[in-house]
Order: sequence, then C-alpha cells, then structure tokens
Amino acid sequence: MRSYHLSPGAGIDSLTMVEGPEPRPARRQILVKVAACSLNARDLGIASGAYPSPLKPLVPLSDAAGEVVEIGPDVTRFVPGDRVVSCFFQAWPGGRPTPAAASSALGGALQGVLAEYVVIEEDGAVKCPEPLSLEEGATLPCAAVTAWHAVAEYGDVRAPDTILVLGTGGVSVFALQIGKLLGARVVALSSSAAKIERLAALGADICLDYGADVDWGRTVAARTGGGVDHVVEVGGGATFANSLAALRSWGKVSVIGGVGGAGTINPLAILAKRANVQGISVGSTEMAERLCAAIAAGGLRPVIDTVFPFAEARRAFAHLQRRDRLGKIVINLDQGAP
Amino acid sequence: MRSYHLSPGAGIDSLTMVEGPEPRPARRQILVKVAACSLNARDLGIASGAYPSPLKPLVPLSDAAGEVVEIGPDVTRFVPGDRVVSCFFQAWPGGRPTPAAASSALGGALQGVLAEYVVIEEDGAVKCPEPLSLEEGATLPCAAVTAWHAVAEYGDVRAPDTILVLGTGGVSVFALQIGKLLGARVVALSSSAAKIERLAALGADICLDYGADVDWGRTVAARTGGGVDHVVEVGGGATFANSLAALRSWGKVSVIGGVGGAGTINPLAILAKRANVQGISVGSTEMAERLCAAIAAGGLRPVIDTVFPFAEARRAFAHLQRRDRLGKIVINLDQGAP
Amino acid sequence: MRSYHLSPGAGIDSLTMVEGPEPRPARRQILVKVAACSLNARDLGIASGAYPSPLKPLVPLSDAAGEVVEIGPDVTRFVPGDRVVSCFFQAWPGGRPTPAAASSALGGALQGVLAEYVVIEEDGAVKCPEPLSLEEGATLPCAAVTAWHAVAEYGDVRAPDTILVLGTGGVSVFALQIGKLLGARVVALSSSAAKIERLAALGADICLDYGADVDWGRTVAARTGGGVDHVVEVGGGATFANSLAALRSWGKVSVIGGVGGAGTINPLAILAKRANVQGISVGSTEMAERLCAAIAAGGLRPVIDTVFPFAEARRAFAHLQRRDRLGKIVINLDQGAP
Amino acid sequence: MRSYHLSPGAGIDSLTMVEGPEPRPARRQILVKVAACSLNARDLGIASGAYPSPLKPLVPLSDAAGEVVEIGPDVTRFVPGDRVVSCFFQAWPGGRPTPAAASSALGGALQGVLAEYVVIEEDGAVKCPEPLSLEEGATLPCAAVTAWHAVAEYGDVRAPDTILVLGTGGVSVFALQIGKLLGARVVALSSSAAKIERLAALGADICLDYGADVDWGRTVAARTGGGVDHVVEVGGGATFANSLAALRSWGKVSVIGGVGGAGTINPLAILAKRANVQGISVGSTEMAERLCAAIAAGGLRPVIDTVFPFAEARRAFAHLQRRDRLGKIVINLDQGAP
Repeated sequence: MRSYHLSPGAGIDSLTMVEGPEPRPARRQILVKVAACSLNARDLGIASGAYPSPLKPLVPLSDAAGEVVEIGPDVTRFVPGDRVVSCFFQAWPGGRPTPAAASSALGGALQGVLAEYVVIEEDGAVKCPEPLSLEEGATLPCAAVTAWHAVAEYGDVRAPDTILVLGTGGVSVFALQIGKLLGARVVALSSSAAKIERLAALGADICLDYGADVDWGRTVAARTGGGVDHVVEVGGGATFANSLAALRSWGKVSVIGGVGGAGTINPLAILAKRANVQGISVGSTEMAERLCAAIAAGGLRPVIDTVFPFAEARRAFAHLQRRDRLGKIVINLDQGAP
Repeated sequence: MRSYHLSPGAGIDSLTMVEGPEPRPARRQILVKVAACSLNARDLGIASGAYPSPLKPLVPLSDAAGEVVEIGPDVTRFVPGDRVVSCFFQAWPGGRPTPAAASSALGGALQGVLAEYVVIEEDGAVKCPEPLSLEEGATLPCAAVTAWHAVAEYGDVRAPDTILVLGTGGVSVFALQIGKLLGARVVALSSSAAKIERLAALGADICLDYGADVDWGRTVAARTGGGVDHVVEVGGGATFANSLAALRSWGKVSVIGGVGGAGTINPLAILAKRANVQGISVGSTEMAERLCAAIAAGGLRPVIDTVFPFAEARRAFAHLQRRDRLGKIVINLDQGAP
Repeated sequence: MRSYHLSPGAGIDSLTMVEGPEPRPARRQILVKVAACSLNARDLGIASGAYPSPLKPLVPLSDAAGEVVEIGPDVTRFVPGDRVVSCFFQAWPGGRPTPAAASSALGGALQGVLAEYVVIEEDGAVKCPEPLSLEEGATLPCAAVTAWHAVAEYGDVRAPDTILVLGTGGVSVFALQIGKLLGARVVALSSSAAKIERLAALGADICLDYGADVDWGRTVAARTGGGVDHVVEVGGGATFANSLAALRSWGKVSVIGGVGGAGTINPLAILAKRANVQGISVGSTEMAERLCAAIAAGGLRPVIDTVFPFAEARRAFAHLQRRDRLGKIVINLDQGAP
Repeated sequence: MRSYHLSPGAGIDSLTMVEGPEPRPARRQILVKVAACSLNARDLGIASGAYPSPLKPLVPLSDAAGEVVEIGPDVTRFVPGDRVVSCFFQAWPGGRPTPAAASSALGGALQGVLAEYVVIEEDGAVKCPEPLSLEEGATLPCAAVTAWHAVAEYGDVRAPDTILVLGTGGVSVFALQIGKLLGARVVALSSSAAKIERLAALGADICLDYGADVDWGRTVAARTGGGVDHVVEVGGGATFANSLAALRSWGKVSVIGGVGGAGTINPLAILAKRANVQGISVGSTEMAERLCAAIAAGGLRPVIDTVFPFAEARRAFAHLQRRDRLGKIVINLDQGAP
C-alpha cells in the first residue's frame, strides 16, 4: 500500500509517497482503509520543525476517515464495514488526560494516517456521524474536537452564553458552528469582508472587521453589553490582551493556538478580569463521541475549503499556508491513483 | 388598591377580592404595579390545604409581571419604569439555597402577588425579557424557572442530549421549549392526540401516546437507542418506575411533582440504573436571570392556555383543574375592572 | 497453576480448587502472580444466584493484589516486579462509563481472580499504594473504590461536610476512613456496642446505636444540627426513608446496596428533601488511582477482619455471611499450600 | 464613636482618628461593635493610591470581627449578642458574582470597618467560628476567604492533591492551613530559614528555600514527581513562569496577587502546560460560611503576627510593609483607649 513519509523539520518538500506492506491489527486494534484525511496547522509545524516529532521518517497527519476492513482480537466497539474517524490521541479514552495520553498523538508521537491503510486503537476511533461523507468526517479529529472541548466541555456553553471566535481557521469555524448548535450567540472576527459574509452565513450573530481596529477587544465588549462569556483564543500573544478586553468579568478563555504571532501579557490582567483561562489540546475519545452525536443530531456540516487528490498531498500542505482560505483542507485517498 | 384573599385549606371558593392600602417599598425593595399573574398546580394545593401556608388570609400566587413604580432606598437593580417579573423565592439570590430561602416563597410562606400593587425584594425580581409581553412574563417565575433549573442547570443538558417530558403541564411544556433552545432532542408523552400534535409543533422530536402503553418507559428506551439522558419527572409515584425504565444508565431524573398520583419505588431501582435523581424546587434569582437571557436570545415564547380578567380569578383557579389545557393560565390585571 | 471454580447459583459449596495452565498476557495485558484476594457481598450474591454471571464455571472474586510477572506487548503502565491491585471493571479507564465498562466486571461478566496467576488489562489495574501490604491492597478494588467514588468523587465531600455511614460492612468502614482523610465529620451507626467502640477508634465523630431507634434518621438530623450532607446508603429499601430523614435539605445520597432488606419509598420524598440521589457501582481505574494516591499520602490502613489461607476459600465465603465481622475478609494465596 | 479616616492616595500618614455619631442599622442591616480588625496588602494599596477608592475620606479596612449590638428590620440571620465577622463584599451572597458584587467591597468602594461601630448588611456577615477569639475572627474576611475560594472552591482540592504556596503572606499561610484541613499535601516556599521552620510547624509537607534558586519551578516539579496540582499564585509577573513550571499538566493556578513584582508571560505557556488559570478576588458570603464551618470543625487557628492597639493603627499599617512578618496583623479596638 502507499503512504507518505515526511522528514520532520525538513519542510513539506520532504513529503514523499512510498510503497509498503499493509499493516495488520493487533489485539484491540482496527485496520482502516482510509478514504480521506484533513490537515491542521500543527502538521505544518511538524514539517517545519516548530513542533517536534521523534519519528523519522514520519507518516504525517492525525485526521482520517475510512472504513474498518479488519478488526483485531477482543475488539468490541467496531465491526468490519463501520465508517470510522480517527482520534487525535490514541490513548485518551476519557476522563482526565494521563501522561500516556499526551504522547499518543497520531502523526507526531505516533505514526500518522496519510496512508491507504492504517491501524489504530479501537478506543482511539469513533463512528463517523451518519449524515457526513468520509471527506467531512476526516475534518473532525483535531479541529472539531478541539472546538467541542473548548466550547461544550470546558466552556460549558449553552444559551444564553455569547462566545467570540477569531478568524476563519478550522477551530474557529467549528467553534462558531458548535456555538450555534448549543443555542449560544456567536461573535466572529475577520479582517476580510468576503469572509465576514461567509461567517454570517454560517450563523454568526455579530461579525466585526478587526483589521483596522487595534482596540477590538473593547469594541467587542461594547457591542455585547459588557463582554462575551467565552473567547476561543487561537491567536496567542498577539491577540490575548484584546481577547481579555473582550471578555466579561469571570468569563472564560480557551487558549488553543498562536496563529496571530508573538506577544506577552501581564498575568495580573487575568486577575483584573477574574478570568478563567484553560489551555486546550484537542480532546478525548469520549469528547469525540459526544461531538459526533451532536453533529448527527444537529445537522452541522463541516466547512471544507478545498479537496486535493492523494497524489497531490504536497499541494494540500502548501495550500494550508494561504491566508485566504476558510474551513478545512482535505486529501481524498480515492482520488489521484496513477 | 384591590387584591385577593384566600383562606388556605378552605378551597378556591374562599377566594375573595378585597380593598386595601397601597404598600410602600422599604430599603432594597421595589413597588410593582402588577399587569398579569399566572397560576401553578401548587396554588391549587395551597387552596385545598395539600400544601400548608402559615398565613390566613393569604394573598395567593407567586407569579407576577408588571412595572416598577417606586423603589426603596439602596435599590440598584431597578429604576421606575422597568418591566419586571417576580421570583418565586424572595431570598434565594444565587448559589446554594439556605433555610431562609426555603421559607421565602411568594403566595405561601410570604404574601403573594394577586394584587394590583405588590412590594417585592429587589433581589427577588428580574427584568422581563424584552420580547415578551407582561402576560407572557407572568408565566415564568414558577414553571419556567423550575424547567430551566431542571434542564439547564441541574441537567447540564446540551446537544446531543435527549430529554423526556411528561404531559402538557406548565413545567413540561417549558422543559420542551428550553430543551430545544439548548440543542437537545426532546421526547414528549401525552395521552391526547390533539396535544401530541401541539407538542410536535412546539418542536418535540419524538411524540408518543402513553395512554394505552403501561410499559411506556421501555418504549421510550427502545425508541431512543438505549434511553434518554434526562427525565423531567412531574408524575411522581405513578410514573417514576417508567421514567427510570426510559432512562439510559447513568442518566438523570429531575423530581418535580406528583401530578400522576401515588406510588412507591424500590430505591435499589435507582442503583440498578446508576441514575442520578434530584429533587427540584423552582430556583434562584440567578437562574431566573439566565432563563430570561436565554428566552430573549433564543426567541422562546411561553405557551398560554387561557387569559382571565382580574375579576374572574376564581374561574382561573377552576380552569387549572381541567385536564384538557396545555400551557399556562394567566390573570390579566388590566382587564376586569368593574 | 491452581484456581477456584464456582458454579454461579449453586452456592458456595460449589467452590472447587482446580489445576490449570498458567495464562499468558496478550497485547496491553499483564500477568499477575496473585498474593491476596478479598471478598465482597456481591460475591455471595453470585454464588447464590442473586446476581447473574454468564460464565459456568466461574473463577470468582474481583479483588486481587499481587506482583506483575510478565507484561504483554505495548504495555506502558507497568513493568515486571510492580506491585499491583486489580480494578473491578476491566474496561472503565476513566470518564463516563460506557456499556462496555458495565460488562467488564471481574468475577462476574469476566473470569475473576481467585487464582495463583491472572491476566488483566493494563488499564484495568493500578499500583498498590506503597505503604500497604498486598493483603491490604487486595481489599481495595470493590469496597474502597466504591466508597471513594461515593464520598470523594460523586459526593465532592471535604471539610466541613458531614457524612453518615451505616453499619460496618466494607464500603461503610472505608467511607468512614476516607471521610476523615478529606477533613469531613463522620456519623457512624451500628447496633453493636462493641462495633461502635471500633468505629469511634477509626475516627467516627458521632456514633449512634440505631438498633432500638426506629426513627434514627430524625435522631441523626437532630444530632447534626439539621442533617448530614451525605449518606453512604448501603441498606436499601429498609433504611432509605431514615437515610433521607437524616439528610439536610439539598444533601446527597449514594445508593450502593441493599443489605438492610426490602422496602419501598415514595419518590416524592426525594423532592420533599430536595435531595440528590446517585446510584454508585464501584468506579473507574482513574478513581482507583486517586484513591491509592490518597491512601498513600494520608496513611489510611484498610481494616481486615480475618485472613484465610488459599486452601480455605470456602470458609472465607462462609465467614462473609456472619454479622459480627467488621472490615474485609482476605484470602492469602501464599498460605495454604498443601 | 471613634473611627479612622484615610485619604486614599495620600499614604498611611493621612490616617487620622476622628469622632463621629454612632451609625444605626437600616432594614436587613446589623450594627456591630467592632472588637478587632485585620490588615491586608490591598489596604496599603488603597493608601498609596495603587488601588482606587471613590471615597474621600475613607474609613479603611475590610476585615472586622465584633458583636452584634442592634439589628435592623427584617434581619433573620443574626440576633444581638452574636459574634460576627464582616464579609469583604457586602453584595455577593452566593452564586456567580454580579457587577453589583464587585463594587461592594468594604474599605474601598464602601466605607470600611476601622471604627468602634459599623453597620453592615446581614448577608454581608457571617458568624465567627465558635473556637476563635474575635482577634482571630478578624483575620478571616479577606485573606482566609481568598485562600478558601482558591483552594477549596475553585481548586476543588482534596487528598491526594498537592498544592504550592508562595511566601508567608496572609493568603499563603491560610492556604497552607486549609490545604492540610482538606487532606492535601502542601509545598511551601520561602527565602528565610526561620520562616521555613514555621511553615513546617504549620504542617507544610515540603519546604523549599527559593531565594537562591532562579529555577525553583522545576525544582518543585522534580520534588513532587511531575508537578503540583494547584499553585496559589500571589507573586504575579515575577513568579508566574516558575509557578507554571512547578505545575503538573492540566493543573490549576489561582492568580491572586502580584507581591513579587512586575513581569510578563507568553500566554502560550498556559497552553503548553494545559493549565487552568483563574483570577480570584476574595469570595462570597456563602464561601465565608463554609470556611468558618471548616475552621470550627477542623481546629484551624489563624496565625497572627502582631496585634496593635486601636490608637496605633498607623503603626499597624507601617508594620504590614515589613518583609519579616508571618501571618496577619490585627488591630484590637478594646486596647488603646486614651
């Protein structure tokens, strides 16, 4: 079977298709014929070396959807033929994360899923929500589970809460959609008029162009009558102070990423706002299951920016670097056969 | 000003309109010109003597909406002209209930609101949600706050949870509507085809006629793939065993009332289901505020069965005993002047 | 190696020592040389047929402690030489229990541990707390984890809460000790003066003889200034009404067992007390780990009633039926070789 | 009666004793004859102008204990003769804090308690724990409630958790004592050998001199087998990075103050640690009640550094600036009459 190898730190040009033997599932594992994968900012970080991976070469990517074609001994959660989605962490079934969980990420600590066949743990996979295609299912493991963890699990968001999402990356768009599913009001920020239109179409109640507004935190606070209940913070040091300014007293901030660039804060700003700030790193299999049930029940459809064929994985990685995208980038394994 | 007096235990025929002086607000109190009141099963219980009240005569009812016409010293939450809704408990601002909270119910431990003017605590009132009329606002204090407490606060319900509501009393209809606001799936039971149609129109995802089905708990479990996450239990001993049968393992039951009649259970049935069962008695001012914010944001409109003029309060009480109603019974104070 | 076989439903006389091959650990499993086992009321229920087991013959018992002598592939939590304790459920690592968890109990749904060597899941075992002997460690899996789940996890008990424990069974004695570890005040009931003395020596703050007091719930409420915060309810229908009477408003009841005999309650009694009632069935591996850490840090020593040699397992079962015991019954595998 | 006036921003030299009329309690208020007050770092900040107060002149201090000598109308929580302790916030009875709560601090937004008689809200006071003297009771309102909020309420700390406290200020010493009350393990840091000895005597399990150790966060992590569960962070920017380093993954940080001096952090450090960080500002009346119950049940005695007579309040303020103190500074109103 074919898979891709990446040399972590050597950039996306090191991505190479290789041929190898089909793996076999051991006890409590399943063999999945991968139909689609999706990419996350973290995958670029692994390629560039910003995030370390101990594996050289590495099969990249954490996000896959496909069909179970074989099950190992003692598997109880799946049968062959099931449509499944991988979980980012292979060893975080539920409850509090353990050190073992932290070192079980696909496409990083463990070999990833950009391959025609992959073996994953049965408790490191969930059923693909019925209404979704496998291309759509492949968008869930990292970005959607992170957004669900932030908004629904940690955030405990429900009507009448207001959440703030920054930009149009995968986590932010999923957070917007999940917020609407839970009855929350959503404030969405972008610096592109075209994207703002799309965010509004996805259900955002208030859309603001923060490109020209260096004080956008105060603007959000003013527009929401005192601040939002929860900020889904993907910007990092460059945006954190404004995110705190946008928050109501005793509100919550999910710290998820640093796409906005460097910057520092005075930790007493957290005290001044009586904020609760939580670092969020994807989530557990249990969270993925609740997300999938909510997607199935609520009719959420993942937003896909572009689909690339398997043969053009390198182009998919390159596309992820573009600023004009909105939603997820998918690689379809059924396309691109020579 | 005019108000009604009731002799607790002497039945609804003891309800008499009386004339008296207009009250004045003391420190931290507000004077409200009542526009509308609503009735609850509990008010019939006080009339009949099933629920005790230490006050004779008693101004009945806990649920009022109206306009603030005067504020006492040190009031900060309201100004004259504000549209407000009473809180069932006058001394449960938030947090855990205290013994003082338990003995601060309007129209029971304290004099009630079936009067042209009432004085209530400023922290025993909330602003009427903007989109609602005062007739609609008057439906909230007991039934809607109870449903919100059960479903949103205790129940922690959100998509993809499934809740079960029994019949078409005030709490059950509000629970249905609140469940939909939070993205939950709602199963509604009734024994009337006409009511089932209305429950479906209100958004119930699954409607079942349980009139002929003595084993309706199992039916619900089968129809929901293993049981619901939460039962809003208003039936009491007559329905509790079926409610447990309808529940998934480790699910929740809000015990709210006993309109279904007498009956007992083996407490080990709670263990067998690994259920969590919570007695719910209305809620705090803080809960009422979150409910009102959710109503304003989510567009929920209370379902009103019938509106009676002030002069016909006794007829309103009598109407509450009918089994063919759906939604709340309201007394409009602006109607019925002689 | 030697193990015991039981014919579920055929009584403890069906317990027979058999010789068989030593098992081998598969992927993610460990092989444990069992040093000690302990018994629980549930094991008598399986022998008598009160609790069903699908396995005939069944190796009984869920509670074992011993030494890891071999690990299967991909085991990361243990190495040979580790002292370990079994977990009651082999498939409840943490988080919310799943249906799979419910059918993974040792010595019931799965073969048990009354054997010289057993294979268990690596995520179905925890390290034995350093200060405990393996005899002491063997007392933890069912009774102590249940008590921890009830008091610390569900109950959220800490100073200044007051808990009530009934009698001197394994769960109640552990609940007393865990309550003291968490800074709680403990009320303990017994009908034996000798046992009351021992409960006091274990730290119980208030000890009451409830043998002659049919209204002991009210007595407890009076002695605690309005009722306890949490009842560890092991009595079932025969004691539940008194347990509710002993509870403060909005307090909690863990429903764990029915050793007191049959009886029913009106579910509206739960409403009248605004109680929260939770069915508790042992707990997860994550809970067992926190329990073990608390035991190691706090110096708790399990109370052992009697230790029997391996050869006299049947006598151990018989002893469990006696009413005059206090604490756990242990079978020592290193004793009783012919 | 006599009280002190302070000119906020004019320094502690502006503190002047004045004579004025005895206040009278209005509805829902109590009149307290103050026996003792205690000081907090915040009071120095108000004197210096670092913290703003709208009142000029201001009666300083938030912490008082004394005897109820008169109650206003409708007071139900107290009777004359009760020994009471003030609550820092006069309008945060329980539940989630409101904007009104935030602007109800004694000795800041509202006039304070450094006076022979003060009027406070009945729901802004709690009974002094029975075993404590009024001097001891006077130490609780700010520092002890903050520590309780951080450790017990937000932190959810119980055995076997490990907490870290920094230095020997009022909050840190109370946090140490409360941690021990809850069965937690406590790591305490100081740069003074003499203080370390006293922290150990108060029950600290691990005491470290962090004076010479610029990397003390890592040292703590190493000494605790991977990091503490909770840091009671009073140092601010100067210590925050080390506090995060001392924390285990997914641990908690209470952000309480900035006595260590200025400094900034990269917010992504919170993500890297998957930490939860909460700004803590004292607490509610409900929290104060639970603290007092825990103190009474657990035998905690506040640590008092020095007691000054009423006439020497200015010296008490000056003493607060010294670095060699440990525990609280108290002003005794019954001493120092001319």
